[in-house]
Amino acid sequence: MTPIKNNETAVFALGGLGEIGKNTYCVQFQDEIIIIDAGIKFPDDELLGIDYVIPDYAYLEKNVDKIKGLFITHGHEDHIGGIPYLLRKVNVPVYGGKLALGLLRNKLEEHGLLRTTQMIPIDEDDVIKFRKTSVTFFRTTHSIPDAFGVVVKTPSGNIVHTGDFKFDFTPVGEPANLTKMAKIGGDGVLCLLSDSTNAEIPNFTMSERKVGENLNEIYRKVDGRIIFATFASNIHRLQQVIDSAQEYGRKIAVFGRSMDNAITIGRELGYINGPKELFIDTQSLNKLPANEVMILCTGSQGEPMAALSRIANGTHRQVQIQPGDTVIFSSSPIPGNTLSINKTINSLFRAGADVIHGSLSNVHTSGHGSQEEQKLMIRLIKPKYFMPIHGEYRMMKMHTELAVNCDVPQDNTFILGNGDVLALTADSARKAGRVPSGDVYIDGSGIGDIGSVVLRDRRILSEDGLVIVVATVDTKNNRLVSGPDIISRGFVYMRESGVMIHEAQRMLSKQLQGKLASSPSNISALKSEITDVLGPYLYEKTKRKPMVLPVIMEV
Amino acid sequence: MTPIKNNETAVFALGGLGEIGKNTYCVQFQDEIIIIDAGIKFPDDELLGIDYVIPDYAYLEKNVDKIKGLFITHGHEDHIGGIPYLLRKVNVPVYGGKLALGLLRNKLEEHGLLRTTQMIPIDEDDVIKFRKTSVTFFRTTHSIPDAFGVVVKTPSGNIVHTGDFKFDFTPVGEPANLTKMAKIGGDGVLCLLSDSTNAEIPNFTMSERKVGENLNEIYRKVDGRIIFATFASNIHRLQQVIDSAQEYGRKIAVFGRSMDNAITIGRELGYINGPKELFIDTQSLNKLPANEVMILCTGSQGEPMAALSRIANGTHRQVQIQPGDTVIFSSSPIPGNTLSINKTINSLFRAGADVIHGSLSNVHTSGHGSQEEQKLMIRLIKPKYFMPIHGEYRMMKMHTELAVNCDVPQDNTFILGNGDVLALTADSARKAGRVPSGDVYIDGSGIGDIGSVVLRDRRILSEDGLVIVVATVDTKNNRLVSGPDIISRGFVYMRESGVMIHEAQRMLSKQLQGKLASSPSNISALKSEITDVLGPYLYEKTKRKPMVLPVIMEV
Repeated sequence: MTPIKNNETAVFALGGLGEIGKNTYCVQFQDEIIIIDAGIKFPDDELLGIDYVIPDYAYLEKNVDKIKGLFITHGHEDHIGGIPYLLRKVNVPVYGGKLALGLLRNKLEEHGLLRTTQMIPIDEDDVIKFRKTSVTFFRTTHSIPDAFGVVVKTPSGNIVHTGDFKFDFTPVGEPANLTKMAKIGGDGVLCLLSDSTNAEIPNFTMSERKVGENLNEIYRKVDGRIIFATFASNIHRLQQVIDSAQEYGRKIAVFGRSMDNAITIGRELGYINGPKELFIDTQSLNKLPANEVMILCTGSQGEPMAALSRIANGTHRQVQIQPGDTVIFSSSPIPGNTLSINKTINSLFRAGADVIHGSLSNVHTSGHGSQEEQKLMIRLIKPKYFMPIHGEYRMMKMHTELAVNCDVPQDNTFILGNGDVLALTADSARKAGRVPSGDVYIDGSGIGDIGSVVLRDRRILSEDGLVIVVATVDTKNNRLVSGPDIISRGFVYMRESGVMIHEAQRMLSKQLQGKLASSPSNISALKSEITDVLGPYLYEKTKRKPMVLPVIMEV
Repeated sequence: MTPIKNNETAVFALGGLGEIGKNTYCVQFQDEIIIIDAGIKFPDDELLGIDYVIPDYAYLEKNVDKIKGLFITHGHEDHIGGIPYLLRKVNVPVYGGKLALGLLRNKLEEHGLLRTTQMIPIDEDDVIKFRKTSVTFFRTTHSIPDAFGVVVKTPSGNIVHTGDFKFDFTPVGEPANLTKMAKIGGDGVLCLLSDSTNAEIPNFTMSERKVGENLNEIYRKVDGRIIFATFASNIHRLQQVIDSAQEYGRKIAVFGRSMDNAITIGRELGYINGPKELFIDTQSLNKLPANEVMILCTGSQGEPMAALSRIANGTHRQVQIQPGDTVIFSSSPIPGNTLSINKTINSLFRAGADVIHGSLSNVHTSGHGSQEEQKLMIRLIKPKYFMPIHGEYRMMKMHTELAVNCDVPQDNTFILGNGDVLALTADSARKAGRVPSGDVYIDGSGIGDIGSVVLRDRRILSEDGLVIVVATVDTKNNRLVSGPDIISRGFVYMRESGVMIHEAQRMLSKQLQGKLASSPSNISALKSEITDVLGPYLYEKTKRKPMVLPVIMEV
């Protein structure tokens, strides 16, 4: 590792700085490492075929004996999705709230890691002590219950990590513990790592309770069925839907695997309350009058395989849109999903439903605090040093400005990138080199086996397809014995391109025979010949640049 | 064609209903067809490798002798981009405002169509008479000068097409001609085809003049260089930038081909006014103090190859970000571009610039009227029948509700799809079947040669790549003489997958030899054998499904 001194505490992130997702933060004092969260990121469009992105865990692998534990702030994918991959590399105890561990349990089971993982449920008042460091918690509000901030006490001072938070003064679950935060701030905080997601949004984020009220306004007016789509993990929202369903005399049918899961786990662990009779199956659903039906489903991001998308395009086996249906998108579009959400909304309208969506209808609120909340956090925690975390660079930058406005000296703020190490003592802070970080791609069962070469090939293939030229050469007699044959995929419709392909074949045949006649068989020269001749010819004919793949078989 | 009667006027669209782009509308009475606009659409992400989408022009090709002319409402790509492709099929006269024709000229030149195309500039007061129909115009306001609505007078009645419009009462160019619209409405309108783009936005769209004022507020405070990115075709915006540059003593350097074009054409045709000395080249740019510089560039949508993106990521040859630079995105993100715009903004912040962007900063306004403007249009034109055009289904639906609120009877409104024919007489309207419509893909120089098979192959290739198995078979002796060789692209990194590939090769070799020994050579059976064996094996090993391509050469 980069040389931090014996009296310094290192703070760094393997993921989660300048990006949304793969949040993985570390605090290290001498031989004790505390990991906070281990998230996953969904790939950009250009990462063709990649399923997920996780951080490079090399530093943790190398220092596995120093790791004291992984502490989860809450149960969202971008904070727990990487855990199975991390645990395969380093088997460390996992500390987290009941709900986060409940959600993690499913995940570990799928990965066959449940039996080997030590999961330790934590409460707000717990103190987890190690030899030199200790970890405590404070309750925050977020779009999932049981969200905690984490305090790592080190000999250099206290490091506070907010997790994701907002200050919802009228939340659906328990309120944030301002008293404890103020106490933590009063006791002295060396460095605050705070959630930057909404740093560009002025003012205060709307309360979850207000969303419930707005939804009730809608329910009051709707006579037909209500189809309600939201993030499955938003247990507070689900609770409000359940309460309203009871109030307005509707039964609830649940569709979508993650929604099913969330309701099941939520009810098992006591985060969701509602009588059993409220929930009905598909059979009963179709017997009820429209104004007694509430359909709760996944697909609020327009995910093509989710329940709502299939309902919208008429391929859902149990639910078809009928006139009078009202579909509510209780969600906001994650950037990159806008087009698929639009498609779903249009299909629903076309099918005859009324659709309520978008920021104007106020049926969703963010789980992240806006500028005034971020400032409130800074004023409560009163850190000596400030490091914005979560979110894109522009958000971290804006968050830093807010901190400076709240009297954190500019020189005491640090906008870092993944891998950058901040070395802290009680009265100093410096950038101290880097640890390995970087994106590791998961594709199918492969972790990190896809690199830039494979991705570049996929991009070329996706744009103009490929053309394969196969020929068999008798290397003893310098003779073409079969081919050249031309095969293409994703390039042109072959049946309609017969003339061009024949012409190319004729040309290649002549070139190869000429080459073979003039010099002894040199396979790689023959291959170059094919690429050199065919590429420009095809471009001239089609203005496309397919991948050209020469294959020479020797007999 | 679908049977419309001799006394009916047909109104239909080949593109532009339920979608953004490829706007192509037709009005037909007996043997006279008027075409309004011929736009292009940019492909969705799933149309891998496709450059543009145009409508199927089959109906127009078949009825070429009836076409009286193509009338352009304004010079945006989604209204003129398809013209070169349309003209290749049907050589018809093109009528349009001076600026639209100016922008079209470049396009036709590139396609080698300039000499064979008859372009007829029109003015607001022109009347273009044909035997049975005639065409007149009314000036509207939009985000490009010289925007016109079109009135087609037919024996059934008058058909009004708004083009794209807003009602900007304090525009930068000429105001909309309300007097004329009121006159048209007073004379009686059979059917209104009106722009639905902003039908979901309440109230009134902000005036272009207000954008200028907000920008001036910013210029007043900025001491460093200003880098200004906007849509090149927004000539009004460019004029305001030029006026402000003069006022605040800045010289203008222009970067990006389309911006260069727009400035050149705009100045040539008198749409942009500004002294020649105001514009400087790169050399002079670097000699001026920062507060005397205004850089005007393309790239406000985060297009990877545009000037601003290259400035942001440090690959622009002439412009590097320096501390104190202020970058203004005077634009709004087109859905689908959000992520690439975010990337550009983050890079600019990282490079040390200040960035002004987003709806909160009010440095952009839409070119389309919001709900109150759409209602104003309906109240002025007072149509008997109403047909929403432009925009997605949900917008057309909302627009129809606005029309009904403005006293158009519900039964007199028609939300149609591309190809649907509306048949009108003076006192009746009915849906009258369909004409061919549909998407035609342009890829390279190919028009319509890419179909679903090629696209499906590209998708498979983009996700998991491909694996080619090549073997040479001596068909006389039923013997494998060479191979099987395995080649892959976009699947796995071959050097690190040696074991798996070897194992697969060994397995295939055995299978093929067995097959050859037991039965006479049957090439297609051998190919199936390869696919059947290899696909499941690779899936088991990698959880990926590459395209498996068996190639058997016969000697």
